[in-house]
Amino acid sequence: MLYETTNPPFIKMLRNLLEILDKGAQFADSKKIDMEVLLHSRLAPDQFPLTRQIQIACDTAKLCAHRLTGKEVPSHADNEKTFGDFKARIESTISILEKFSAADYKGAETKHITQPRWEGQYLTGEEYVLHHAIPNFYFHVTTAYSILRHNGVEIGKKDYLGKLPLKK
Amino acid sequence: MLYETTNPPFIKMLRNLLEILDKGAQFADSKKIDMEVLLHSRLAPDQFPLTRQIQIACDTAKLCAHRLTGKEVPSHADNEKTFGDFKARIESTISILEKFSAADYKGAETKHITQPRWEGQYLTGEEYVLHHAIPNFYFHVTTAYSILRHNGVEIGKKDYLGKLPLKK
Repeated sequence: MLYETTNPPFIKMLRNLLEILDKGAQFADSKKIDMEVLLHSRLAPDQFPLTRQIQIACDTAKLCAHRLTGKEVPSHADNEKTFGDFKARIESTISILEKFSAADYKGAETKHITQPRWEGQYLTGEEYVLHHAIPNFYFHVTTAYSILRHNGVEIGKKDYLGKLPLKK
Repeated sequence: MLYETTNPPFIKMLRNLLEILDKGAQFADSKKIDMEVLLHSRLAPDQFPLTRQIQIACDTAKLCAHRLTGKEVPSHADNEKTFGDFKARIESTISILEKFSAADYKGAETKHITQPRWEGQYLTGEEYVLHHAIPNFYFHVTTAYSILRHNGVEIGKKDYLGKLPLKK
């Protein structure tokens, strides 16, 4: 169940984020401003800029897969500079996530998940997904979207949600 | 599975939203501004203000429960005016959600879910939760948070996530 609720949805949303960022780049281009202006924009002076929102969305998805399955994942140095670097970071995260299968998540629900800041305490895999990974992941994707929206980029809820698998 | 991924997490996040709004009200009070100024703030001129973000977060959670289970839910007229009205809207939504149990969601995964704007097309219950309800719900809670954060309210990720059920 934890594979279905995290892996394919996170991949989909990261793809949507790539499209949203492309619309940001087209907007910057049309206004003759550097995309870096948007990448370093933020909604509040003490909140992370778009650059960090992208990095944390990627890491939330990647570390969720790693923690639930125990499978190792490549680390990223958070040294992206250009728009191309940030797109590559998202694409790299997507390809890492795509290497996981539902079978890797067997037993993940009851696994003990911890991280240094929890000082020896843990959540079960299911609690970690519902209380931490999902709310955090959508928070950072939404905030990335909102930073661009706030700067005038013409994006809407459809860009955020992406295509729905509607059937007749 | 769809009960666990939507009902208790949405209740928790709506409670967190109440706390976040209370911090907004304290901020407004300390700055001697009317809370309505914050309620009518938005991140972009053509994006919904805080009032609608609250209403849509509530409706996304309530309609998700209704659509997955087929159980009727009270309607809300979207006529809230005061800060107290908006808090009552969230509290009402929480108490509606609390009336649902895991048993109500039996068979929800494969149920056909539709809405007028989908023009006769449908998603399965599981697709609806993963592609629509979850991303939308967290989008509106995050955007409500971001509108306040953008206006200077001192809130952080901890307020958004709420308490984690950490264990030793």
